[in-house]
Amino acid sequence: MRAEILSVGSEILLGDIVDTNTQYLAQRLSALGIDLYFSTTVGDNRARLVECLRRAVGRSDVVLTTGGLGPTDDDVTRESIAELFGETPRVDEQMANLLRDFFKRRGIEMTDNNLKQASLIPSARAIRNSRGTAPGWWAEKNGRIVIAMPGPPGEMHYMWENEVEPRLPLDAAVIRSRTIKLFAISESKVDELLSELTPCANPTVAVYAKQDGIHVRITAKSADAEEANSAISPVEREIRALMGEHVWGVDDETQEGVVVDLLRERAATIGVYESITAGQFTAMLAGATEVSAVLKGSLVVPGAEPAEPLQLAAKAREHFSSDIGLATVGTLLSEAEPSIYELIVAISWPAQGIERVTAYRSRPHRVRTLGAYYALHELRRIL
Amino acid sequence: MRAEILSVGSEILLGDIVDTNTQYLAQRLSALGIDLYFSTTVGDNRARLVECLRRAVGRSDVVLTTGGLGPTDDDVTRESIAELFGETPRVDEQMANLLRDFFKRRGIEMTDNNLKQASLIPSARAIRNSRGTAPGWWAEKNGRIVIAMPGPPGEMHYMWENEVEPRLPLDAAVIRSRTIKLFAISESKVDELLSELTPCANPTVAVYAKQDGIHVRITAKSADAEEANSAISPVEREIRALMGEHVWGVDDETQEGVVVDLLRERAATIGVYESITAGQFTAMLAGATEVSAVLKGSLVVPGAEPAEPLQLAAKAREHFSSDIGLATVGTLLSEAEPSIYELIVAISWPAQGIERVTAYRSRPHRVRTLGAYYALHELRRIL
Repeated sequence: MRAEILSVGSEILLGDIVDTNTQYLAQRLSALGIDLYFSTTVGDNRARLVECLRRAVGRSDVVLTTGGLGPTDDDVTRESIAELFGETPRVDEQMANLLRDFFKRRGIEMTDNNLKQASLIPSARAIRNSRGTAPGWWAEKNGRIVIAMPGPPGEMHYMWENEVEPRLPLDAAVIRSRTIKLFAISESKVDELLSELTPCANPTVAVYAKQDGIHVRITAKSADAEEANSAISPVEREIRALMGEHVWGVDDETQEGVVVDLLRERAATIGVYESITAGQFTAMLAGATEVSAVLKGSLVVPGAEPAEPLQLAAKAREHFSSDIGLATVGTLLSEAEPSIYELIVAISWPAQGIERVTAYRSRPHRVRTLGAYYALHELRRIL
Repeated sequence: MRAEILSVGSEILLGDIVDTNTQYLAQRLSALGIDLYFSTTVGDNRARLVECLRRAVGRSDVVLTTGGLGPTDDDVTRESIAELFGETPRVDEQMANLLRDFFKRRGIEMTDNNLKQASLIPSARAIRNSRGTAPGWWAEKNGRIVIAMPGPPGEMHYMWENEVEPRLPLDAAVIRSRTIKLFAISESKVDELLSELTPCANPTVAVYAKQDGIHVRITAKSADAEEANSAISPVEREIRALMGEHVWGVDDETQEGVVVDLLRERAATIGVYESITAGQFTAMLAGATEVSAVLKGSLVVPGAEPAEPLQLAAKAREHFSSDIGLATVGTLLSEAEPSIYELIVAISWPAQGIERVTAYRSRPHRVRTLGAYYALHELRRIL
């Protein structure tokens, strides 16, 4: 089955609000195995909305609209669906009474324009909105389905989960995915390595560049969850073998979470000296749960004079009486544009005989964040 | 002029990421007085992208694409624009050399598929990308403009602001705007206060809730810049009078930048003790330019035992021999959902006879960032 989303609202096209409804619906559709090829945002304009609806029903089985169901003249979704299907909206007395009751219970005056929210066309039935005044529309004609939902996310999510998703005419398929997370390797290198994978159409493999490294997502579509998972496993093994030590986690894992877990397993505490990363490494590490058992503290001296990195790591270790000392320092290699920093991570862990200094390079605007990730990466390697 | 946005990326249609680029561009276009009637998201599929491009150039003067400029086979934006214009992409040797240089300076291997990022068609020129490897394309044929920009927001924003927006063929009207930035006041309170403004259609006033507080944007559209600016000034004065001490800056100013400037003016140095903010305050402050002259250093102890906040501020002052000491501490007030932290900012500045302790409240997931902003806010108030 193929779905399509139409977000309706001039406020989205003016940049006044960010449209989070599309991501929400995209995730729900993906989990159901429903293909989503297009998503369009259109303003509160009837002619343009009808144009988008016409194209959408021409190429997709189900069209989901959000927004434009309010009581004001700006709200044209109902009228546009009616025009698409060549029908005329009329007030439904039962719905009108429900609406009057809703206002009465809240002690609010109901204005005439609210009656618009009680209208229907012959091809549509109302979808209950337990969170607001605007019922949705489930309109169906000639095998095409248009489902109109309200724009406020709280109302829309509730309606989707309770009234729409359970009634969708689904294909048998389910979708499962697995994300393998890599660091210190470029997107293009990952792509090149992946070209050695055994070719296969299901599961699919996609590569994404993220702030915490490269993510490789394996997605399988199957008749049931077990079958989907067993399609993923051999591909995951192949990818892990190709990527080797660049793999640091899967799915929802974070680099800081993985490092804190390793520190806890080894019962090792850490003290930090941050110069170039200016507190970013500590702030990131502190985002992990149960960090206080392993992170004794950090000395942050953003403009510190260049010094021997291992001495600074040792200084942090001594200052906080920790097992491990880690220091980040940086020097500007070239002031000419584009300027480049040398970014050094030093780790000292005398009990394990470890003294490690690694240098990376970074552009100035990324040096604090990248430095924090490199420090996590180096820490993970010694653990 | 009429623009249209095409966001390219299957990860958006799978719901893996939320598309923030569209809102960003919608805001920028709106500020320039450029109409945006449609915005479409399409996956990494050449046939579908060409279909969308064809429709977009048919109804809009400028088409802005984001995403799909990476080095992998998934990235099809360049190929799709070439198909739209009936041309063939070829590697441009000058661009290829720049790319080789980019990789060389970082000491990273450049793979063959990266060369794709150095390709052009006769109708396109490259747009410099100072933040990444993928140059944009400015393609123009038969009076229609297609501007392709990279998907990562940091790269896209920089390219838009420095390379694209200044070169757009704008209508005669100019748009000028002024953003007044507030802190420690709610969006609804701002909205209520603004209802007292003298009503007026030009300039317009809009309110945005951001991480660093509430932004009030005044936008004027006029025949020339001087006229636009003089329409803005009286409204700005009215708003400043209404908002009082909640105003901390305008336009591109950041809270950390304002605070560092004030510290420099007063020739005052600071030492920090961060418990609840876990390095976030220092990392934020370090984002300002010339910070090392005033920030002597920070002690970060995320899981510190509760202590007298003013003593910790004094400890930081002594440890780093600074004029001012600032400490952030926090205690969980209630573990029941929704759990709430008490967030304390203490400042000690003996030379000025200042000892100040202020308590705020925060939900756990925001406590580090909010704590850092409150610390900046308190610091600004004593300066």
